[in-house]
Amino acid sequence: MELWYTEEHTENVRFSIKVDRQLYSGQSEFQRIDVFESKEFGTFFTLDGLMMVTQKDEFIYHDMIVHVPMATNLKIKDVLVIGAGDGGTVRELTRYDSIENIDMVEIDKLVVDVCKEYLPQTACKLKDPRVHLFFEDGLRFIRTKENSYDLIIVDSTDPFGPGEGLFTKEFYGNCYKALKDDGILVNQHESPYYESYAQNMGRAHKRIKEFFPVCRVYQAHIPTYPSGHWLFGFASKKYDPLTDIDEQAWNGLEIKTQYYNTEIHKGCFALPNYVKEQLANAVE
Amino acid sequence: MELWYTEEHTENVRFSIKVDRQLYSGQSEFQRIDVFESKEFGTFFTLDGLMMVTQKDEFIYHDMIVHVPMATNLKIKDVLVIGAGDGGTVRELTRYDSIENIDMVEIDKLVVDVCKEYLPQTACKLKDPRVHLFFEDGLRFIRTKENSYDLIIVDSTDPFGPGEGLFTKEFYGNCYKALKDDGILVNQHESPYYESYAQNMGRAHKRIKEFFPVCRVYQAHIPTYPSGHWLFGFASKKYDPLTDIDEQAWNGLEIKTQYYNTEIHKGCFALPNYVKEQLANAVE
Amino acid sequence: MELWYTEEHTENVRFSIKVDRQLYSGQSEFQRIDVFESKEFGTFFTLDGLMMVTQKDEFIYHDMIVHVPMATNLKIKDVLVIGAGDGGTVRELTRYDSIENIDMVEIDKLVVDVCKEYLPQTACKLKDPRVHLFFEDGLRFIRTKENSYDLIIVDSTDPFGPGEGLFTKEFYGNCYKALKDDGILVNQHESPYYESYAQNMGRAHKRIKEFFPVCRVYQAHIPTYPSGHWLFGFASKKYDPLTDIDEQAWNGLEIKTQYYNTEIHKGCFALPNYVKEQLANAVE
Amino acid sequence: MELWYTEEHTENVRFSIKVDRQLYSGQSEFQRIDVFESKEFGTFFTLDGLMMVTQKDEFIYHDMIVHVPMATNLKIKDVLVIGAGDGGTVRELTRYDSIENIDMVEIDKLVVDVCKEYLPQTACKLKDPRVHLFFEDGLRFIRTKENSYDLIIVDSTDPFGPGEGLFTKEFYGNCYKALKDDGILVNQHESPYYESYAQNMGRAHKRIKEFFPVCRVYQAHIPTYPSGHWLFGFASKKYDPLTDIDEQAWNGLEIKTQYYNTEIHKGCFALPNYVKEQLANAVE
Repeated sequence: MELWYTEEHTENVRFSIKVDRQLYSGQSEFQRIDVFESKEFGTFFTLDGLMMVTQKDEFIYHDMIVHVPMATNLKIKDVLVIGAGDGGTVRELTRYDSIENIDMVEIDKLVVDVCKEYLPQTACKLKDPRVHLFFEDGLRFIRTKENSYDLIIVDSTDPFGPGEGLFTKEFYGNCYKALKDDGILVNQHESPYYESYAQNMGRAHKRIKEFFPVCRVYQAHIPTYPSGHWLFGFASKKYDPLTDIDEQAWNGLEIKTQYYNTEIHKGCFALPNYVKEQLANAVE
Repeated sequence: MELWYTEEHTENVRFSIKVDRQLYSGQSEFQRIDVFESKEFGTFFTLDGLMMVTQKDEFIYHDMIVHVPMATNLKIKDVLVIGAGDGGTVRELTRYDSIENIDMVEIDKLVVDVCKEYLPQTACKLKDPRVHLFFEDGLRFIRTKENSYDLIIVDSTDPFGPGEGLFTKEFYGNCYKALKDDGILVNQHESPYYESYAQNMGRAHKRIKEFFPVCRVYQAHIPTYPSGHWLFGFASKKYDPLTDIDEQAWNGLEIKTQYYNTEIHKGCFALPNYVKEQLANAVE
Repeated sequence: MELWYTEEHTENVRFSIKVDRQLYSGQSEFQRIDVFESKEFGTFFTLDGLMMVTQKDEFIYHDMIVHVPMATNLKIKDVLVIGAGDGGTVRELTRYDSIENIDMVEIDKLVVDVCKEYLPQTACKLKDPRVHLFFEDGLRFIRTKENSYDLIIVDSTDPFGPGEGLFTKEFYGNCYKALKDDGILVNQHESPYYESYAQNMGRAHKRIKEFFPVCRVYQAHIPTYPSGHWLFGFASKKYDPLTDIDEQAWNGLEIKTQYYNTEIHKGCFALPNYVKEQLANAVE
Repeated sequence: MELWYTEEHTENVRFSIKVDRQLYSGQSEFQRIDVFESKEFGTFFTLDGLMMVTQKDEFIYHDMIVHVPMATNLKIKDVLVIGAGDGGTVRELTRYDSIENIDMVEIDKLVVDVCKEYLPQTACKLKDPRVHLFFEDGLRFIRTKENSYDLIIVDSTDPFGPGEGLFTKEFYGNCYKALKDDGILVNQHESPYYESYAQNMGRAHKRIKEFFPVCRVYQAHIPTYPSGHWLFGFASKKYDPLTDIDEQAWNGLEIKTQYYNTEIHKGCFALPNYVKEQLANAVE
């Protein structure tokens, strides 16, 4: 059976995955949700046709969006996760006993329902008693929060469709307000390689910098995302991930990870010159 | 015109580039050589249908294969380059005034001729007086060399076809012999992500380790190579790239690069856990 | 959502259909069965990855496999259909009040079950009281029949996998035996355009000719089959489709068809020279 | 080398041919011209990315556009060919010794030059002394002609770009005027299967009918054209192809053809019901 899922990374670049069969297809109020089975990547799921999570390499994304801020400040207790309907970010967070509360705000309940059924690998910890699920618009949810969280993780889709609001100045300002005095904001930060992604990356960075004194970008190799060169934003009111990481303490936790380690922690903030220039020269 | 070049990264993954037109197609004694023009990546060239160099991102590969060893030992004078027919590695090397001699051994003269015509961006320094071109089999060339080079760069294709010999124990042993007492060997080291590449990566690492006391692997984001997660091997008789780099001295050279910088130098050796495990558990 | 079903008509030719979603995927004892929804062709179904029926153009195939023999002999009462699990052939047959009995022998019950659910357009007449369904191997079923049918329609897959036996000499001989003295055999007869199909076509023709005094081939335009140039075999003990057709009588039945008409009946036996040569020169 | 030429037959259907190499790519004043080499179809050429001629099956198109009108009236002496830059139509015409003059009007000289170099199989008879090449706009050329030709063949591209004018009422009216009292007009008439083609087909038929008393459509199996079901228009002032064909005379000429024969001649005018309805219900 020649059945191929294709993501058009640009008009001129296609990334195609041979599909064994489609496991699910549905349309929520917000977006189209599909789940596929593939030989190369196992089960994977897409939103509006764009790759979100594959069984094979979701560990990379979830390791990097969670352990980098956590290793920077191991005293984090209150976490807000926005988006992340597949549950992978929450799964990694629940590995820290020190975390007391995880508010997860996902706009689309259907995403969570579908991932619970088809991606138990990521959705396995949504019933942890510390996790509180809110099916709401993250943009609206955060408006009412003040001085409430040690860490906010924005695990969003690309900045169009349901994810658009999570890349606005208003949203970043509200994140700042919702964080405590030593709070950290980490967000999915697009990619520097293909032009349209790089523009979104630059724009997000420029907006976050207006609010946070510490504002860095770090990278990971995620082969199923466009170009495989994917970025995360690290913004904080106080902590610097390069100087405040307590390697010994984090390693003492003995959290077994497949991608992240404390060397990667320090290495991942070393950006190529062309990316540094894009960030420095970003325009609205 | 819908004309697409596709590289099958595995049987189940295709990476496709829209082609404006084919600029060249030829068959040498060793391999098929094609050159294409594309909107996304500019001119790119392939050997036996596999992506070698694109105008858009060749700087990543060439920066990383050259500046990492050079910044580790700025006293390098004699360099042997094996493969590298596109000229990009030599171009980067010629930026160091301190280098006195570059022997470049390319098995396939037609690759050089084609790149001179269609990829002047990489092939521009092959006439530098320090460069000596040998159209020979690198495997054979190196057999007769002893204590001759400060740096050997193996800029090869994948380990099948013409590139196969450059991944053998015999070859690595001869590299060791051809290097001076503080010599460095850097090689194109495949990728950890897709299984067949990961096997080649592990095998190469295992073989090199048998000869060299210092044996590390470093990585770069090269989106046009399979998975975008590409590795280089750094082996040496004496120098360690993490402790022997003289950042200030390298930065003092004011070599303008688009990817490499001395932070990247230190960061690129931080490998994901799954890659470390692959290297540790590699089998023949 | 870029999801494409592709049939490789040859190693060098691909026909691809954009799929909205996959409606069904299952594996029976005999073959893999998939059902897809598409914008261009509506619902379509495949066996072992090969196109069988599309909602848009199934009428062409079913018109031509049924009305050509029926218009040749309007006195047909007893019909045997082999294969045809989608039900389209039976649907067309049931439009003739004069037919008294239709035995349908399909090896794979799951095909019928799936088509009943997803392709009611073709599977709508399987409950006609004249229809008797046998879920058996057609090759075996026919061995015991003698002088039993006025018409046998072999609506098979390609001659490999479950359909292989339906292209053998033994099978054609048994068809001859199972037919009455003025019986007609019509079969799906592959295509003359791509080489592997043309070989199967020639071989089938050669084998049928050994048994039947009248042995012709006719063609239709079926764009979703490889090359779009599809053939049917017409073999009979007595009737010639070109001289025995009673146009007036058939038109008097006022069966509304989208493809077939009595002009097509006469025109479809006019084969291109290159097809005539292939048939004349066919080898085992 | 995975290099694929794709023609998008609709937004949802792709036909792809594996290409060995591109032999030519150029841009004329009118259109883009490309020539490819393929294993399946030999050399083929495209205009603005759309398939025009393949070495493998050009005989079908050229047989059908030439021999149908010629066999209808073997006294044809003066022929005008519009378009047909590949030369295949002229090649077939030159096989009739009775033809005295062939005016060929091709708007794009580069098409002829390219075909002479890369498709000698079709362009081989352009130097026949009876052939007069005019590199002009056919629409303009014909305006000045009156009572001049026995046969006009419009071998055009699709009705957009350079071919657009050759589907207008004005043009058909001028063809009528340019023909002698028993003149015949044959034209490339698109396809009935995919919607956009069917609309063009209907519109052309409707316009031609306004001028010519005899107005028929005939079909051929051309697998490399969209859907493989391709049509030709036959319009004339006097001759009817079904009643005026002199089979014996044509067969007496002993013109060896691979597709056309006098049975095909009569059969190809038998159109499926759905095509007849499209033609009857065509709107502007």
